[in-house]
Amino acid sequence: MAKEITGRNENYSQWYLDIVKKADLAENSDVRGCMVIKPYGYAIWENMRDQLDRMFKETGHVNAYFPLFIPKSFLSKEADHVEGFAKECAVVTHYRLKNDPDGKGVIVDPEAKLEEELIVRPTSETIIWNTYRDWIKSYRDLPLLINQWANVVRWEMRTRLFLRTAEFLWQEGHTAHATAKEAVEETERMLDVYADFVEGYMAIPVIRGRKTPGERFAGALDTYCIEAMMQDGLALQAGTSHFLGQNFAKAFDVKFQNKEGQMELVWATSWGVSTRLIGALIMTHSDDDGLVVPPKIAPLHVVIVPIHKGTEQMDEIFAKVKPLMAELKSKGYKVKFDDDETKRPGNKFADYEMRGVPVRLAMGMRDLENSTIEVARRDTKTKETVALEGIVGHIEKLLEDIQSNLFQRALDFRSSRTYLVDNWDEFVRIIEDDTTRGFIMAHWDGSPETEDKIKELTKATIRCIPLDATEEDGKCILTGNPSRQRVVFARNY
Amino acid sequence: MAKEITGRNENYSQWYLDIVKKADLAENSDVRGCMVIKPYGYAIWENMRDQLDRMFKETGHVNAYFPLFIPKSFLSKEADHVEGFAKECAVVTHYRLKNDPDGKGVIVDPEAKLEEELIVRPTSETIIWNTYRDWIKSYRDLPLLINQWANVVRWEMRTRLFLRTAEFLWQEGHTAHATAKEAVEETERMLDVYADFVEGYMAIPVIRGRKTPGERFAGALDTYCIEAMMQDGLALQAGTSHFLGQNFAKAFDVKFQNKEGQMELVWATSWGVSTRLIGALIMTHSDDDGLVVPPKIAPLHVVIVPIHKGTEQMDEIFAKVKPLMAELKSKGYKVKFDDDETKRPGNKFADYEMRGVPVRLAMGMRDLENSTIEVARRDTKTKETVALEGIVGHIEKLLEDIQSNLFQRALDFRSSRTYLVDNWDEFVRIIEDDTTRGFIMAHWDGSPETEDKIKELTKATIRCIPLDATEEDGKCILTGNPSRQRVVFARNY
Repeated sequence: MAKEITGRNENYSQWYLDIVKKADLAENSDVRGCMVIKPYGYAIWENMRDQLDRMFKETGHVNAYFPLFIPKSFLSKEADHVEGFAKECAVVTHYRLKNDPDGKGVIVDPEAKLEEELIVRPTSETIIWNTYRDWIKSYRDLPLLINQWANVVRWEMRTRLFLRTAEFLWQEGHTAHATAKEAVEETERMLDVYADFVEGYMAIPVIRGRKTPGERFAGALDTYCIEAMMQDGLALQAGTSHFLGQNFAKAFDVKFQNKEGQMELVWATSWGVSTRLIGALIMTHSDDDGLVVPPKIAPLHVVIVPIHKGTEQMDEIFAKVKPLMAELKSKGYKVKFDDDETKRPGNKFADYEMRGVPVRLAMGMRDLENSTIEVARRDTKTKETVALEGIVGHIEKLLEDIQSNLFQRALDFRSSRTYLVDNWDEFVRIIEDDTTRGFIMAHWDGSPETEDKIKELTKATIRCIPLDATEEDGKCILTGNPSRQRVVFARNY
Repeated sequence: MAKEITGRNENYSQWYLDIVKKADLAENSDVRGCMVIKPYGYAIWENMRDQLDRMFKETGHVNAYFPLFIPKSFLSKEADHVEGFAKECAVVTHYRLKNDPDGKGVIVDPEAKLEEELIVRPTSETIIWNTYRDWIKSYRDLPLLINQWANVVRWEMRTRLFLRTAEFLWQEGHTAHATAKEAVEETERMLDVYADFVEGYMAIPVIRGRKTPGERFAGALDTYCIEAMMQDGLALQAGTSHFLGQNFAKAFDVKFQNKEGQMELVWATSWGVSTRLIGALIMTHSDDDGLVVPPKIAPLHVVIVPIHKGTEQMDEIFAKVKPLMAELKSKGYKVKFDDDETKRPGNKFADYEMRGVPVRLAMGMRDLENSTIEVARRDTKTKETVALEGIVGHIEKLLEDIQSNLFQRALDFRSSRTYLVDNWDEFVRIIEDDTTRGFIMAHWDGSPETEDKIKELTKATIRCIPLDATEEDGKCILTGNPSRQRVVFARNY
């Protein structure tokens, strides 16, 4: 057991922060709410980004880059959007500093005031649709399928590394279509891409669904989402895909000539995932010994620790494992031989456990003689001694097992904490108890008032209306009014 | 000839802007000085970034991410640095907007004023060295070799797409070392990486050198650079690598315990290249028909245009070229078959010329019968008819030829515009005449006053003191004072 981190049962929030710190993922900076993403955390993000980028390109999207700044007036153009985003944001008012006449550093030059303030983008719909006006003239220019990888800023008052920071990294897709049908299809396609990525690569099971009107993106007609369950039973929104209708086309006057020569407003979608997903990764798989990373996004797949006395023994061990390292590398795995002589093997084991390296190999002098090696897997923490003959195939198989085991384990946990509930007292009991809290599938009468009331009473929100739900007659969990479908209630991050 | 773009001889500046626009690389946004990088321009940047990233990782560097914002007081901590960077920058003073009581959009909430203003990073030395203080405790933590891919903002008054924009994309390496020697070696190593990249991938020949004290980075003890010559004879600084000494370690109190147990200040380097390189790319290779892109960074290597009547003929042609497309793709080349039936082949030819696609294939019905294909190369605009048998090998060879031809052509041009000059009148004559203007290798007495005077008289600056120059006795081109080495004078972007 790693003494340095708080147990999950003791204090889940502190455990989370301990993992972020001890696994060297990120830290708070001296700029309020802004984090520093450390090399190991950034390497995980790079793997996530590269895979998502491949999936975006396979579905016909291209990348572009739009300005960091948004003129203040742009935000006001879409009425709902401004309500959602214009409030807590970083505002640039000046463009110059000057030497303090008192000789103490620099001060803002009052003469360098901008005519119109600029907002650091909290999301880019406005600046992008202002640009699309010139790009879209005819149906031949559609669909326009563009993605941007960028940093965005939302002036959050209470921040938490990865989960909620003032600045974060994300991608935002912004597409334009000739018809509502195509735009809705795109919205759903990208939700599926997100679900495939989060489940297939991050090994996090998700529920695909739609948000209630009260939980929609500011400016969207419909918001689709994927929702994941963390180990404490709380929900985390892992990605969203919005059908924006013609709202931004109206606000920025983006029209196209259709095949019949008539002018029509363009239909829009936007969709995004962010570094917040790293928070979901931690809270889905990790344990009291540290981070656990699924092989498909791990910066390092296999680490080899020599158990030796002196450099000569280490050299012998290195010579023995060199061929398997080369073979693993040629198959695309990241492999490291830890030749640091200032650390003891036990400390190395603990370090790599903390960082969640999926497979750890250890070789001592007996292994060397017997042509064997000790293989430890991070997910189950089991060890076995294996013959070097055929070891690469063994490790490949093991990495696949770890990937699927992590997904299955998370799925089993989610199942164990998912409840069909038809009784209000049971609803409250489950949600209040941190040993049972999870997803409650219950009927809702469809009214925003009921949704608000349930939130007020239990802090549980409607995470989504699942896409795969079957229609059934039922009664609202709170009001008893008629309902046709269950929705997912949970407390959430 | 593409009618839409201004000839280079007519107006080089306008030709440049025409290329940026017509090749769909970038455009000005409605935010002063900030550009939109369009998908085709961004695809070139992605290829540049990915290759540089591989080279950084091969030389032991890792990526991380630091905050967009820098507290104002940080900038003042390093005296030279603040002089260079604190002046023209975007200043965040508030963190909230509110509804205008007059009902007209939103206004800045005067109550949401930051205690200390934040600067949008113009470069990240200060925030990074403030962070390194906690990361570096012992010689075991060194060297620290970190790179960041990021957007930065410098409030330029006169902007020009790619060459000088308020916001731009770049990478900035920030490394920490135990000794001055190691830091200087790193500075030189990264200069070599830049030179290898710019010459080997972008096919732009560069001179490696050091800046004079007056041209150094604000806060550096020594600035190394690579300088390229554009087609109009002006120099463009294509990358810089700085030896920062202990200046930032002093300013941010970053010390490490050496092997003997004593505390020492850390030695630093920083190095960067930016989207400005795309400007250099355009002005090195492109012509009056459009952009020319070296194969090694081209988003599309080969385009195939069918010359056909009706869909049936197109399908036949497509069936014929399908195997060669598959083979090229399997070798890592990007290939496109242009099946757009709304455009005529001639227009397609012009479009792909404008975008600088290295190789264009065209197949008509006669080619189909003869099992031949027309192969056109973008750099020389020559065409030939080639048998389909063995075509993939032919194209591979051709792409290599194009890559090396572009480099050689740029090198020849540079040679033709590089002069050994020992006479002031000749110096002035060459620099004033836009048919001769280029690099002048001349003696300089080493004084900042002479450097300034030459700049004042001719607008020529010392681009660098070349690393490979041989020592020779000479007399300063302006003052006649003794000099030991020639330096590179040029007008510059």
